[in-house]
Amino acid sequence: MRTAPAAVLYESRQPMVIEEVTVLPPQLGEVMVRMKAAGICHSDLHVIKGDLPMPCPIILGHEGAGIVEEVGAGVTSVKPGDHVIPIWRASCGRCHYCLTGKPALCDMGTEMRFTGMMPDGKTRFRNHRGDSIRHYAGVSTFSSLSTMPEAAVVKIDPEFPLWKAALIGCGVITGVGAVIHAAQVPPGSKVAVFGCGGIGLNIIQGARLVHCTQIIAVDTLAIKEGYARALGATHFIDASRQDPVQAIRDLTGGRGVDYAFEAVGLPQPIEQAYDSLRKGGTCVVSGICRGDARAAINVNQLVYAEKTLKGTLYGSTRPRIDLPHLIDMSKVGSLMLDELLTRTYRLEDINEGYAALERGEVARSLILWD
Amino acid sequence: MRTAPAAVLYESRQPMVIEEVTVLPPQLGEVMVRMKAAGICHSDLHVIKGDLPMPCPIILGHEGAGIVEEVGAGVTSVKPGDHVIPIWRASCGRCHYCLTGKPALCDMGTEMRFTGMMPDGKTRFRNHRGDSIRHYAGVSTFSSLSTMPEAAVVKIDPEFPLWKAALIGCGVITGVGAVIHAAQVPPGSKVAVFGCGGIGLNIIQGARLVHCTQIIAVDTLAIKEGYARALGATHFIDASRQDPVQAIRDLTGGRGVDYAFEAVGLPQPIEQAYDSLRKGGTCVVSGICRGDARAAINVNQLVYAEKTLKGTLYGSTRPRIDLPHLIDMSKVGSLMLDELLTRTYRLEDINEGYAALERGEVARSLILWD
Ligand SMILES: [Zn+2]
Ligand SMILES: [Zn+2]
Ligand SMILES: [Zn+2]
Ligand SMILES: [Zn+2]
Repeated sequence: MRTAPAAVLYESRQPMVIEEVTVLPPQLGEVMVRMKAAGICHSDLHVIKGDLPMPCPIILGHEGAGIVEEVGAGVTSVKPGDHVIPIWRASCGRCHYCLTGKPALCDMGTEMRFTGMMPDGKTRFRNHRGDSIRHYAGVSTFSSLSTMPEAAVVKIDPEFPLWKAALIGCGVITGVGAVIHAAQVPPGSKVAVFGCGGIGLNIIQGARLVHCTQIIAVDTLAIKEGYARALGATHFIDASRQDPVQAIRDLTGGRGVDYAFEAVGLPQPIEQAYDSLRKGGTCVVSGICRGDARAAINVNQLVYAEKTLKGTLYGSTRPRIDLPHLIDMSKVGSLMLDELLTRTYRLEDINEGYAALERGEVARSLILWD
Repeated sequence: MRTAPAAVLYESRQPMVIEEVTVLPPQLGEVMVRMKAAGICHSDLHVIKGDLPMPCPIILGHEGAGIVEEVGAGVTSVKPGDHVIPIWRASCGRCHYCLTGKPALCDMGTEMRFTGMMPDGKTRFRNHRGDSIRHYAGVSTFSSLSTMPEAAVVKIDPEFPLWKAALIGCGVITGVGAVIHAAQVPPGSKVAVFGCGGIGLNIIQGARLVHCTQIIAVDTLAIKEGYARALGATHFIDASRQDPVQAIRDLTGGRGVDYAFEAVGLPQPIEQAYDSLRKGGTCVVSGICRGDARAAINVNQLVYAEKTLKGTLYGSTRPRIDLPHLIDMSKVGSLMLDELLTRTYRLEDINEGYAALERGEVARSLILWD
């Protein structure tokens, strides 16, 4: 039986415990991945803090890249040695959502996300006492070895650096996808981006890629201005010092922006993003909140100004199609990745990585394995 | 100088006063219309009740149909004797919104709606004391003669009954348009419609036209069930007796509807419509509220279930194109109109017409002139 070091969350609001776990071999239609890079992202932080509770113990981590170590029976799309990006919503290929181009809503992937189990209702992780440990989003990239469905991995070019692949697998595809797939922003548009974390910076990047002429970044931390401008922001508003809605109106001749993106996950910036739209504008929300959080949306603005408020998960992309596209865009120099990576950690320092994320110090940070 | 009987609102929460008003002749680019039918609709009621205040005195009425009486200099699209439908957002043809297929958001039309003035900042109505009386939505169909911009009238087939044209001009185009243009509902979809008034019944009709297989009508008045079923509803939920969100889940195998429409104009039914969506679903709102009303939208549902909340004005149609289309659809028998008309009134009984509307007794009622 294989064992591997992993970061296990035994209880919310407690540090993760780094320990050797048993990783059961891949079953029918499953693969085991040796992780080479894993992203430190807010979605895990919500579980760590208990805002979006999950049953424990659990191995978190939903972003990463690695090498296939072993495959179970019936696996055809990858073989040992292949480089892969785990996708945090496995897609079955047969449900209503998979068949309508929305694989992130797949019933199987959604079920795995909320139960922490493989599709057979069991887990593939055990601790030294033999207790089952749950999976997170079906992929648990904070385990050095992780067993997951074949439906949760996308094979990628083995020449492409795995640390870059890990960045692309969540923040980049979600942020760039929000612009290109969810909002379908046409060139020449004016946009505002609320929140300059891992997703927000890639929304800024997406807006640059589709040739937006005003890209107004908003954050409450002045330190984010440099990151935002590096990725393509034309303006930066420090929302701790001025009202961003008024500032956006001032920058757009009083009208507001065509598209506003929210990548914080709090009611106030969602309401501000919505309020900063011009008539006919669309507000796209990708930020995750506490489960009961509600944004208060002015109804007459909705109707008289024909506004749209739209949520997006995984940037409304088809990861199996769009991850390879993004890798190609990086290779030809369109997509910026080096600018996103602020820090790297070893697995044993993961708790410090999350503390730095919570303090807002980083654009994006990664856990790297040798 | 022409005079004509009109219903003048001198103060909100007071009855309209029927009196002879002076109607100034059409100026450059304007037309004078002799009204033959005018619709009694909730949008006026919001002004009458003071929920959406307008400067007074004002002649309300935004739905109607009539015959061109006189045209000003430069008018080319209509001549005296032509039958027309006044449109409640005149469109300039040159602004961002007119050029992007959203004429209901036209800057000129919006300005006229909120000021009560013609584009030159003056009015064309005077009372017997010589006081200026404002226009409503640029058309003031509760005056037997009304001067309005050429940009606010659409010429129609003179064989088509004007009472039917008046119905089409607001409730039908807004409701059917919400389905066909705003939501673009594909055949086979399951929909819920909150509110079975003049707009809601035509949302039901639109859903029938595009071959929805479940059309779940929701209202708090049991009397609406007959109207709703006549227009195409397959189910009716009395929201005063059961939770409509749970009832919709029960009717859709636990999933929710693909599209939910709100045509009440209150936060609670908007929240219920949103909550009754399946993953990936869209909630389209056409109801008008008090100006400060806000709906509380669960954020994680927005993102994890990729929901969309979308406002629609005038059904997101292009009235100059779509009014003639709807008339043709009525002629070939696709569009039901007779079923919509509950009562007719003479202008002098207009206050009773609004009282009946507020009591929820009618599907749609009209003021008719000989
Ligand atoms: Zn992530
Ligand atoms: Zn699926
Ligand atoms: Zn109306
Ligand atoms: Zn215009």
